[in-house]
Amino acid sequence: MLPEPVLRAAQAAIWDLDGSGIGILEHSHRGPEFGRVLERTERLVREVGGVGDEFAVLFVTAGATPHFAMVPQNFLRRGETADYCHTGVWSGKAMEEARRIGDVHVACSGAPAFTTTPTHATWSAAPRYCHYTSNETIYGTQWPSPPAGAPAPLVCDASSDIFSRPLPLDNLGLLYAGAQKNLGPSGISLVIVRRSFLDTARAAAAELSPLARYATYADEQSMHNTPNTFGVFVIGEVLAWIRDQGGLAQLEAHNRRKAAVLYDFLDASAVWRGHAAPGSRSMMNVTFRGATPELEGKLLARARAAGMSGLAGHRSVGGMRASIYNAFPEEGVRALVQLLDEVEREG
Amino acid sequence: MLPEPVLRAAQAAIWDLDGSGIGILEHSHRGPEFGRVLERTERLVREVGGVGDEFAVLFVTAGATPHFAMVPQNFLRRGETADYCHTGVWSGKAMEEARRIGDVHVACSGAPAFTTTPTHATWSAAPRYCHYTSNETIYGTQWPSPPAGAPAPLVCDASSDIFSRPLPLDNLGLLYAGAQKNLGPSGISLVIVRRSFLDTARAAAAELSPLARYATYADEQSMHNTPNTFGVFVIGEVLAWIRDQGGLAQLEAHNRRKAAVLYDFLDASAVWRGHAAPGSRSMMNVTFRGATPELEGKLLARARAAGMSGLAGHRSVGGMRASIYNAFPEEGVRALVQLLDEVEREG
Repeated sequence: MLPEPVLRAAQAAIWDLDGSGIGILEHSHRGPEFGRVLERTERLVREVGGVGDEFAVLFVTAGATPHFAMVPQNFLRRGETADYCHTGVWSGKAMEEARRIGDVHVACSGAPAFTTTPTHATWSAAPRYCHYTSNETIYGTQWPSPPAGAPAPLVCDASSDIFSRPLPLDNLGLLYAGAQKNLGPSGISLVIVRRSFLDTARAAAAELSPLARYATYADEQSMHNTPNTFGVFVIGEVLAWIRDQGGLAQLEAHNRRKAAVLYDFLDASAVWRGHAAPGSRSMMNVTFRGATPELEGKLLARARAAGMSGLAGHRSVGGMRASIYNAFPEEGVRALVQLLDEVEREG
Repeated sequence: MLPEPVLRAAQAAIWDLDGSGIGILEHSHRGPEFGRVLERTERLVREVGGVGDEFAVLFVTAGATPHFAMVPQNFLRRGETADYCHTGVWSGKAMEEARRIGDVHVACSGAPAFTTTPTHATWSAAPRYCHYTSNETIYGTQWPSPPAGAPAPLVCDASSDIFSRPLPLDNLGLLYAGAQKNLGPSGISLVIVRRSFLDTARAAAAELSPLARYATYADEQSMHNTPNTFGVFVIGEVLAWIRDQGGLAQLEAHNRRKAAVLYDFLDASAVWRGHAAPGSRSMMNVTFRGATPELEGKLLARARAAGMSGLAGHRSVGGMRASIYNAFPEEGVRALVQLLDEVEREG
């Protein structure tokens, strides 16, 4: 979901960007009109996220998946080790790509149940970086804070909780996030990379084609090839909306309250139980199961009839999942709780 | 430029896709609503382009640039040769990426002036494929028909003239096109690949990450990762508009007539001269120079004052360039001719 003011702004810009008489889809990415859009969106990333000049802010066309490969391609060589925290499907995919390039040390793992983000990690002696996935959409777990004690810069896949709370900038080397959950349309990702960490990539990445090198995006203001111009515009509008809501601390408090409405109900319920362990629970994706398949089936049918879509869990794990990203309203959560309660009472 | 009905449809879909009550930016790419959008756009590619089932139709996030690397990564191995037609900056960039992977044989070249698409090519003995760039935006040249006599499947970068005329499907192995010129927004590309040619890639590409393999897109209906859903929607609207204009033969006739208005004027002018040689002239990008820098400066100033933007040539070659893609109206060309005429008369 996106906030209504963002949708209205996108509609207007498709017809006429900032009074230029030409729409955002039609402006050249080299023209001054798009230049202002790009500059504004980067400024808002820095303002809302508290991102200083020690970081570069990049926009990469395509979502998070290419970064699973780009991160090791840029920062890892054969014979070197990167540490990965294995907390679910997405971190598993990231590990798979890193193994094509170098050695992967699993510093901690929530396998096989993936109900927690581990509280203790065993890091390798000299990893190039330490990768974690801040929120796992499928299991509904979220790191309450970044993994502690990492002996190398952290690399964070923040695709599904970016800008839902303050950014994890301490000890951060690189953060990447596909935009389509909290930030905007699909087909674009935001990267925040510490310049000193990026400098360690340059040599390793020299044999890569320019588009596969993070340094290219940093050196050419994300304009080596034509960026997803509409995506950059929408991200700017989402960030302006977050700023107008009072910023990230405010939004986190709101998200926490919103998720608690559902978790509190699940904790008290006799027939619905949450999947993720307290302390690892996601504010973005609440996963739960019913006591019987019949109960789950009944809930899904009733939810569909009430116009609540997307409540079935990911096909790989089943159960139920309520995705309650930034723009999802608290009334929606309350409506779901009421429905869960009704189905429970009816038995 | 995009046709007005396309912009209006995009505005409407951002608020509410097909009466679903939810916008195209918010629908899950795995839901039935986007499934119908993807299915419709592919169907229209096939219908408007005359693309049979011997080809797969793929949507890749990001424009043409990644294909410069993906084509050799998928189809070329070290020790093998690919033939390239060198007709300007874009084919040069494609050649550069191929040289990272294998041997490049330059089958024909328009260097250094790049005023023509060569009429004769000297192919190598056994190339894996033969690459050409059907329209070169910077020099304003366009292949009147695909290079003749290629001893291997053609690979065509059609980014800047896709769907401006019937598709070059004869002897085609693979065609790729960034969408932002004639097809839709930036951040998405269309690929049409002959299935039998794609099969020759599978072994060579096995060590690549899934997103770098064309086979992944063919096997998973372009849904291995989240596609640019808005882009797929807009491309469908553009194709519906082309169909409603009477199809590609009709559109080509219109484009030819439109470009001739400008070329005929340039041929008759005493002070303005076209860059591309007759027979290689682009219907999409008309490049020309004035007899003096003063004349060019005057034209640019007058054009800006008249609200005609983007008339300066690419920074790498200078001069003037009128980009008159599919949706650019004939009146716009006539207005430019009138302005050129005025500046010429005033001297």
